[in-house]
Amino acid sequence: MTERAASETGDALLLTPGPLTTSKSVKAAMVHDWGSRDQAFIDINRRVLESIAQIAGASKTHVTVPVQGSGTFAVEAMIGSFVPRDGKLLILVNGAYGERAMKICEVIGRACITLESPEDTPPAPEDVSAILTADPSITHVFAVHCETTSGILNPIKEIADAVAAAGRRLLVDSMSAFGALPIDAADVPYDALAASSNKCLEGVPGLGFVICRKTALVETDGNPHALVLDLKAQHDALEKSGQYRFTPPIHVIVALEQAITEHEDEGGVAGRGGRYTNNCKVLVEGMRAMGFETLLPDELQAPIIITFHMPEDPAFEFKRFYDSLAERGYLIYPGKLTVADSFRIGCIGRLDENHMQGALQAIAEVLNEMGVTQTGPRKAAA
Amino acid sequence: MTERAASETGDALLLTPGPLTTSKSVKAAMVHDWGSRDQAFIDINRRVLESIAQIAGASKTHVTVPVQGSGTFAVEAMIGSFVPRDGKLLILVNGAYGERAMKICEVIGRACITLESPEDTPPAPEDVSAILTADPSITHVFAVHCETTSGILNPIKEIADAVAAAGRRLLVDSMSAFGALPIDAADVPYDALAASSNKCLEGVPGLGFVICRKTALVETDGNPHALVLDLKAQHDALEKSGQYRFTPPIHVIVALEQAITEHEDEGGVAGRGGRYTNNCKVLVEGMRAMGFETLLPDELQAPIIITFHMPEDPAFEFKRFYDSLAERGYLIYPGKLTVADSFRIGCIGRLDENHMQGALQAIAEVLNEMGVTQTGPRKAAA
Repeated sequence: MTERAASETGDALLLTPGPLTTSKSVKAAMVHDWGSRDQAFIDINRRVLESIAQIAGASKTHVTVPVQGSGTFAVEAMIGSFVPRDGKLLILVNGAYGERAMKICEVIGRACITLESPEDTPPAPEDVSAILTADPSITHVFAVHCETTSGILNPIKEIADAVAAAGRRLLVDSMSAFGALPIDAADVPYDALAASSNKCLEGVPGLGFVICRKTALVETDGNPHALVLDLKAQHDALEKSGQYRFTPPIHVIVALEQAITEHEDEGGVAGRGGRYTNNCKVLVEGMRAMGFETLLPDELQAPIIITFHMPEDPAFEFKRFYDSLAERGYLIYPGKLTVADSFRIGCIGRLDENHMQGALQAIAEVLNEMGVTQTGPRKAAA
Repeated sequence: MTERAASETGDALLLTPGPLTTSKSVKAAMVHDWGSRDQAFIDINRRVLESIAQIAGASKTHVTVPVQGSGTFAVEAMIGSFVPRDGKLLILVNGAYGERAMKICEVIGRACITLESPEDTPPAPEDVSAILTADPSITHVFAVHCETTSGILNPIKEIADAVAAAGRRLLVDSMSAFGALPIDAADVPYDALAASSNKCLEGVPGLGFVICRKTALVETDGNPHALVLDLKAQHDALEKSGQYRFTPPIHVIVALEQAITEHEDEGGVAGRGGRYTNNCKVLVEGMRAMGFETLLPDELQAPIIITFHMPEDPAFEFKRFYDSLAERGYLIYPGKLTVADSFRIGCIGRLDENHMQGALQAIAEVLNEMGVTQTGPRKAAA
């Protein structure tokens, strides 16, 4: 057996859609304490929020509003704050995160309809246009930038243009894409975009955020369904005093400041996205060389997480595959979200092509150990 | 000027109601990465949740349900999950945290009434009994254990008995008390109790939790107003797979595990509470020796945070007082929440009586620098 792979801090490498492997310096930033209402922390937090708006190309038009918790807390805050209680949301669904937005609407009592497409098929912008034309009661549209369920890249620019042309407002879940895939606010019109600390910005988990168009945020009074998920109230408090309404996850935010510095040092979205694209290429080519097939054609594949069909060989046992890779220091996503009989490997986080090559070698070893010879898709694959 | 005081990690000492000074070992636990769905993290999380129920003396009757975010996220989840949509909540208010519960009810649409008392006066259990007798539509009562606004200890056992005698359900906000002040679930009947990682358990901020009576939690289907604040759904997911529904703040939780180990090593609630009680005694005696007066009489003072009347001397300037103490490495609470003209100093966190003595010496120096001679309460004090 090969030597166990490890990160700078001796941990297994996380080949998942996040939380993911972060740099040692990001984590080491947390070995301090700050007063949440002291100027030192207030300054750090301000820089984090301003930098996020800059990454989005949105400094002039939008503000970053943080939401303690996780990415889904930010998505729920976005829907609850922006969609009026008598509004109606069109949700574009081709995976679990579109479905989660439906569930949010159901619980919080917002009217919604869906445009569903299979998990390997992006929503068609012309279908969005047709639905918006046919139903003038729709006020907002919800779209997922990269649907982590399959790893598919949805055509967010074309969707945004269709929504704008129809005079409606767009809400974007860019959770797994923001920071690595370009989405320029000057080019892609949206009222709000949600993401989090622990995806492509390579911070630790604990903070979601919503990049909000200023002119839209001021119209949200009375919309929110939850005190802690009220984006305008959170923003107003930060504007007034620099302080959070409720205790912020200080250490997570300080780590995020360091992560953003490292994002800048890598060349921003282009640099980060370039490394991930190369990781993805190395992984996909290596897996194909072993006979595996991807769920998605290359033109729909985002360089975030890749879905592979389960091998047809009955000797392939997923639990053993996962555990044997874990023993070698590679944690892949332990389970499947997709309809297809498949497994997923992420290529984001503090990982480069050497880590991908190492993962490929470990996979080859494990297949050999299991006696798997046929890695093409199972006949029963959906 | 004296040498600047500092924690083990070189940071200013936090004499606030939290986030507070934590041990170096608690923070150092965060310098690793874990997969959120991997067994290693699942095991850590399970131990954290079980230990919290044990600290509450509630292992047999209750379960701990975590809520990402902050303490208020847990309080809102508690109210939204336990009070049915057609229920009615009696809120006992003698400070900002009772008022916050009112605000939550207003936003989420739960009927509520209040029993208000001044911030230096605990709610009277007999008044609670009278209100419950007079209004049979009240289903739940919300009480704050230690109201951090003033630092007052409310009579939670007597309130709980009054609520139980009237056949109603109790929800407790024990945010700033849990882990240091005894509240035994076998003796104090409640359906739910909310607290957080970053108060007397001495973890870092980012996780709230609610200790829920199992038989009451199962009755909460359909109550929650927010997907992310649904306690039963969170619990069911953890029971089923050990995994969170939404990304957990992994590093915060791993730090909390270490903090709980250190809580056990200190002798649990008795040991932790004993140290804080001594801190409080040293601080109050020292401040009184300098002429300061506390807002509360000793019998109502919880050993968490102490409110002092502003000195009458016009030479006393709070901002300069705060900044000069900060320069010396002591961060007190920068502002006031109470009605009275006052300031507050916390005595919780990884601090002992030597730190309190150091703070007292720094305060004496700063008063001297400012030329303050009269430290008794201002005549205009409310």
